[in-house]
Amino acid sequence: MQLAKAGKAIFCEKPLDLSLEKVLSTLEVIKAVGVPLMLAFNQRMDPNFQEIKQCIVEGKIGKLHTIHIISRDPAPPPIAYIESSGGLFMDMTIHDFDMANYLVADEVEEVYAKGVNLIDPEIGKAGDIDTGYVLLTFKNQVTVLIESSRKAVYGYDQRLEVFGTKGMMKAENPLKTTNQFIDHTGVHLSQNFNFFIDRYAASYLLEVTAFIEALQQKKPMPITGNDGLKAMLLAIAVNKSMHENRVVKMSELLQ
Amino acid sequence: MQLAKAGKAIFCEKPLDLSLEKVLSTLEVIKAVGVPLMLAFNQRMDPNFQEIKQCIVEGKIGKLHTIHIISRDPAPPPIAYIESSGGLFMDMTIHDFDMANYLVADEVEEVYAKGVNLIDPEIGKAGDIDTGYVLLTFKNQVTVLIESSRKAVYGYDQRLEVFGTKGMMKAENPLKTTNQFIDHTGVHLSQNFNFFIDRYAASYLLEVTAFIEALQQKKPMPITGNDGLKAMLLAIAVNKSMHENRVVKMSELLQ
Amino acid sequence: MQLAKAGKAIFCEKPLDLSLEKVLSTLEVIKAVGVPLMLAFNQRMDPNFQEIKQCIVEGKIGKLHTIHIISRDPAPPPIAYIESSGGLFMDMTIHDFDMANYLVADEVEEVYAKGVNLIDPEIGKAGDIDTGYVLLTFKNQVTVLIESSRKAVYGYDQRLEVFGTKGMMKAENPLKTTNQFIDHTGVHLSQNFNFFIDRYAASYLLEVTAFIEALQQKKPMPITGNDGLKAMLLAIAVNKSMHENRVVKMSELLQ
Amino acid sequence: MQLAKAGKAIFCEKPLDLSLEKVLSTLEVIKAVGVPLMLAFNQRMDPNFQEIKQCIVEGKIGKLHTIHIISRDPAPPPIAYIESSGGLFMDMTIHDFDMANYLVADEVEEVYAKGVNLIDPEIGKAGDIDTGYVLLTFKNQVTVLIESSRKAVYGYDQRLEVFGTKGMMKAENPLKTTNQFIDHTGVHLSQNFNFFIDRYAASYLLEVTAFIEALQQKKPMPITGNDGLKAMLLAIAVNKSMHENRVVKMSELLQ
Repeated sequence: MQLAKAGKAIFCEKPLDLSLEKVLSTLEVIKAVGVPLMLAFNQRMDPNFQEIKQCIVEGKIGKLHTIHIISRDPAPPPIAYIESSGGLFMDMTIHDFDMANYLVADEVEEVYAKGVNLIDPEIGKAGDIDTGYVLLTFKNQVTVLIESSRKAVYGYDQRLEVFGTKGMMKAENPLKTTNQFIDHTGVHLSQNFNFFIDRYAASYLLEVTAFIEALQQKKPMPITGNDGLKAMLLAIAVNKSMHENRVVKMSELLQ
Repeated sequence: MQLAKAGKAIFCEKPLDLSLEKVLSTLEVIKAVGVPLMLAFNQRMDPNFQEIKQCIVEGKIGKLHTIHIISRDPAPPPIAYIESSGGLFMDMTIHDFDMANYLVADEVEEVYAKGVNLIDPEIGKAGDIDTGYVLLTFKNQVTVLIESSRKAVYGYDQRLEVFGTKGMMKAENPLKTTNQFIDHTGVHLSQNFNFFIDRYAASYLLEVTAFIEALQQKKPMPITGNDGLKAMLLAIAVNKSMHENRVVKMSELLQ
Repeated sequence: MQLAKAGKAIFCEKPLDLSLEKVLSTLEVIKAVGVPLMLAFNQRMDPNFQEIKQCIVEGKIGKLHTIHIISRDPAPPPIAYIESSGGLFMDMTIHDFDMANYLVADEVEEVYAKGVNLIDPEIGKAGDIDTGYVLLTFKNQVTVLIESSRKAVYGYDQRLEVFGTKGMMKAENPLKTTNQFIDHTGVHLSQNFNFFIDRYAASYLLEVTAFIEALQQKKPMPITGNDGLKAMLLAIAVNKSMHENRVVKMSELLQ
Repeated sequence: MQLAKAGKAIFCEKPLDLSLEKVLSTLEVIKAVGVPLMLAFNQRMDPNFQEIKQCIVEGKIGKLHTIHIISRDPAPPPIAYIESSGGLFMDMTIHDFDMANYLVADEVEEVYAKGVNLIDPEIGKAGDIDTGYVLLTFKNQVTVLIESSRKAVYGYDQRLEVFGTKGMMKAENPLKTTNQFIDHTGVHLSQNFNFFIDRYAASYLLEVTAFIEALQQKKPMPITGNDGLKAMLLAIAVNKSMHENRVVKMSELLQ
């Protein structure tokens, strides 16, 4: 809000805020003032996911049917962070909501979600879950299945698969090296990256470059405040679905 | 029923019947007569899935959290077959329900399912879906996500991933050869197998061997009539969930 | 010789004999009598290598430049076997000589070879090597590099790579399963097959089928006595090169 | 020479010079003056190859038997460059000679090499080859097989495999992305990197960092002038072997 009023171009981490009202009022101010705003959904800039988006746009996948997203962190954040995070779906899965929106490029009709506390009872005591499952149904009948987990002992796991009438494309985890060691117990490949800082190094560079480029060339921002709002609304609907253990239509949120 | 009355050992394809009543009465006769019955869920005998089961049992995966199953056929069966098949979940996904039961080795608490008709409108006219999504919640909090599709242009696609506190294990599709061809467009591997006959050749041999071995050694059958019943009940619950677009508890079926 | 004189069709393991004179005289008798003879170079029938041959013939690889062959056994045979085996190049590498002849389909101009005794001193005492390196130069300027080893602790290792002006194709080792296990130490794939019996199971079936089919349809045998002779002559030249530590021209053998 | 006389620390590309005399005299001046010299064999700093070296040193591979190195450029350099390059072995394979020296950490006893002109007749007219094969025999009986090619249509190909008594480790080519696209023709992975600038980006950064670190901490340089000399002597021996089509002992060079 301060930056907007100062007339500065804004590069903002997700989410804009945990309060929907504040997000809406901030976006209004930004719109009124007319400053550019880029939401930092860095994963959109990952070269793997960029190629998948490109293949969808070019029709290489055909008509989309199903997308699977698996996102597993190497370890949960501190409980203090979790308490102020907005919860797993708002804090972590929001990246996957944005990815689903980006790849499907349509509106979500309804959602179903389930969350469990399997990893650390302290997370449950803090009122949060550590493992979540989401099923998004888009108006064009594409279904997106998402799994989010706060802990995979083998490191950061970020996979994506798009399935359509012409083929399937999936992003496998890059590994630390491309070496193979083979002994009597089998073939051993390298480890997953540790976390987002090393896994998404290229995307961070590319998103800042895209921000600067859009400013210099006075182009629209590649990821907008509205993108942030849409992902946030999905998190809200998904939380509602989880708490009421039922399918929630996006239209319910507007009432 | 005839075989049971004739005192013959029975090796039976899934499902025992499309009518639950008939299944229950047949199982009762079989039990009364005391003939051995093996349900031919051949996928349990696949060496890949066998190794995964083994690793779960040995504790190598740790406490199970999530299982993903993707099953895509190369092409839908004829409409005439579909009309008498019991529907996608009863005909095709039933293999995955059995796999979930086999791997998790617990009771399902509740299910949520969604089905769509994306591939061939004739399938919709026949009252069936061709693409289905299932979320099974077991009493021990393991969640199983299943996608079933009647058509993947790239051949038979059967993948399985189990994720737990000590690691993750996944079965990748075997390919026709292990050759790699590399040219200016990239690295090209072989194709998926065409369908179940070639993909599961080993499992068919192993299941018949297991049947004969159990008979010869008078051991209990490795896959029982009750296994068939349990998978069928999941299909019934899942169909109910899809038609009513809501979570269905397994306890509802018993009322 | 007895079979030929009895007028029987012959399916014969490599080599025909360890004595070149005996091979030549046997082949003459077989020719005179006119019985069909198939040399059992089973690896030619392996589906992986068949696909590579096919791609070469169809021009997919372009003009061939280089072939790499790596053949490593899981463990050396007993010393008694080694003593009567004809040596590493005649006993083991002969499969790779035949594969080179098969894939390049031209005459060898000259060879260079080196052999060492690294694995078991008893093999050295028996007058043999356990690790060999061969460089074959064909008249059409294709070069084939071969490594043979009597022992790889990780099982049977049989790889092949053909490199040409349009691309490269390589046969990777099939593994026991296609599962991946991922934990904090990395990604773990299955093991190599144990040895030729399981690794080449398909090829054994296919070669016997090809033999019977050729007999029934009165077609020429797919692998001939002359193929056996050519591979054997390469083994002889390669042994000469190793013992004299110099390049040996194939034309020297004919003098 | 000028830098040494000016007392500057030297970071020098390979080779120091094409004339052995000039290299020897320059190294003497550098030694006399006492300035630090680092030879820029960047491939030593590649994280993949670093891990392989580490595994050798830690004994994970066991006693080394064989190393395979394949180095293929995407396209030959201009003829003008080739004419002043010192030839394929001195210009290109020298990286692999250094890698062999680095990994085996022993002295070469003898070499055998072959070179052909297959890719562009202009290269032959310029007196050079475009495809080379080298077999290095180290005093500790490790054999290194090297293939160098000026042209692979599929991009930059740099692979390395070390085989020993405890296992085998190989560096596979990293690809542009880790995506897989699967359609009816098979599974398609990404492309190889274009050339050394992108393939070895990490190594260039690491070698400059190592140079600066060695200067700041007054440590010995990680790659020395003597390393450059040793690789150059191998290139000289290998050229001699190729031209005389015979095995050349390294001791011949000293006479």
